[in-house]
Amino acid sequence: MRILGVDPGLTRCGLGTIDAEAGRRVSLVDVRVARSAPDLPPDQRLLIIADEIEKVISEMKPDVMALERVFAQDNVRSVMGTAQVAGIVLLSAARAGIPIEMHTPSEVKAAVSGSGRADKKQVQAMVQRILRLDKPPKPADAADSLAIAICQAWRGGIASLTAQPDRSQHGGAGSLPRAEGSDLTPAQKMWAQAERMSRRHGAVAPQEKVSTQ
Amino acid sequence: MRILGVDPGLTRCGLGTIDAEAGRRVSLVDVRVARSAPDLPPDQRLLIIADEIEKVISEMKPDVMALERVFAQDNVRSVMGTAQVAGIVLLSAARAGIPIEMHTPSEVKAAVSGSGRADKKQVQAMVQRILRLDKPPKPADAADSLAIAICQAWRGGIASLTAQPDRSQHGGAGSLPRAEGSDLTPAQKMWAQAERMSRRHGAVAPQEKVSTQ
Repeated sequence: MRILGVDPGLTRCGLGTIDAEAGRRVSLVDVRVARSAPDLPPDQRLLIIADEIEKVISEMKPDVMALERVFAQDNVRSVMGTAQVAGIVLLSAARAGIPIEMHTPSEVKAAVSGSGRADKKQVQAMVQRILRLDKPPKPADAADSLAIAICQAWRGGIASLTAQPDRSQHGGAGSLPRAEGSDLTPAQKMWAQAERMSRRHGAVAPQEKVSTQ
Repeated sequence: MRILGVDPGLTRCGLGTIDAEAGRRVSLVDVRVARSAPDLPPDQRLLIIADEIEKVISEMKPDVMALERVFAQDNVRSVMGTAQVAGIVLLSAARAGIPIEMHTPSEVKAAVSGSGRADKKQVQAMVQRILRLDKPPKPADAADSLAIAICQAWRGGIASLTAQPDRSQHGGAGSLPRAEGSDLTPAQKMWAQAERMSRRHGAVAPQEKVSTQ
């Protein structure tokens, strides 16, 4: 299953694509940062970011998208622009017929580092380790977008988007994590736990996607 | 000059179109409210609203758009959805090559009622009077979108979007309000004042529009 994670932002918008394979394995496919100059009018900035998001969707063809949830109290100065970008990300997903889920910053940090209070360096280091990269992804927005995609791979409940309640019965013993506790990091143990807590899915079949027509 | 005013919202999004003629005269062209059901996923709600906005743009062919500016402190529960809608409104304008400006709620209220603290009923009553309607536009979102369009007609500085500083010299005596103070309401006097304070424009010629290519 291919997952596009988006760290929304008007100045820098992280766009990280991973492949989630059987078991817990996730691999880097692509990562880029869309940027717009702060001195441009807001509508022109959003146009630049939207074009880049649609380009990534068209090139990477994700099965699922994930977006960091923005809160009003986070940062009053920039939060409105961030929420505007979140709006165009949600719209781009709907127009492409791709299911999209939102995760809070704490959920994303907990998924990759085992702690909802991890700082940017810890998130970068864990993303590097999880995706077996030579160096930490930079800037932080790039690492964050990959962390959001990883969070989706392990915590996402895409079945909830398909409105097919009986999918919750489809997990089965074969999807439970194996070899847990032997050579796993604390973060990996936490994912394994999260994985048990959530329903397990393989690739989402096309007919199960949310219809946007 | 045809103006589309947008009162952004996820549950109800007001879309009011007016024509601003020479002098202070403004006329109703169209008003509608795009709605999305609160129980739909956010991406599907934004898609419904975006489709309706693009339909209005396509049908009404506005020269200019105006949007109410959203603040983070307004209403924490709904403000993120409102900001997301504002993002897709800005993007729709940019994609259609239509200049768009934002006005604060106080600016809009002051433009139509003479007071930045006017309540919804006062705004509805003034919009009815200004546009010479048989009854107040309802719901409030419809009246607000028309108030935003009227605010744009009288306060908007579209020249600032065209980056042609010499346009500020084009006002001339002919564009000053006439008969001021005789049979004008307090609100109309305020517009006349706002009109003097701002630069006066006729229709924006196509080549003066902001390029979005």
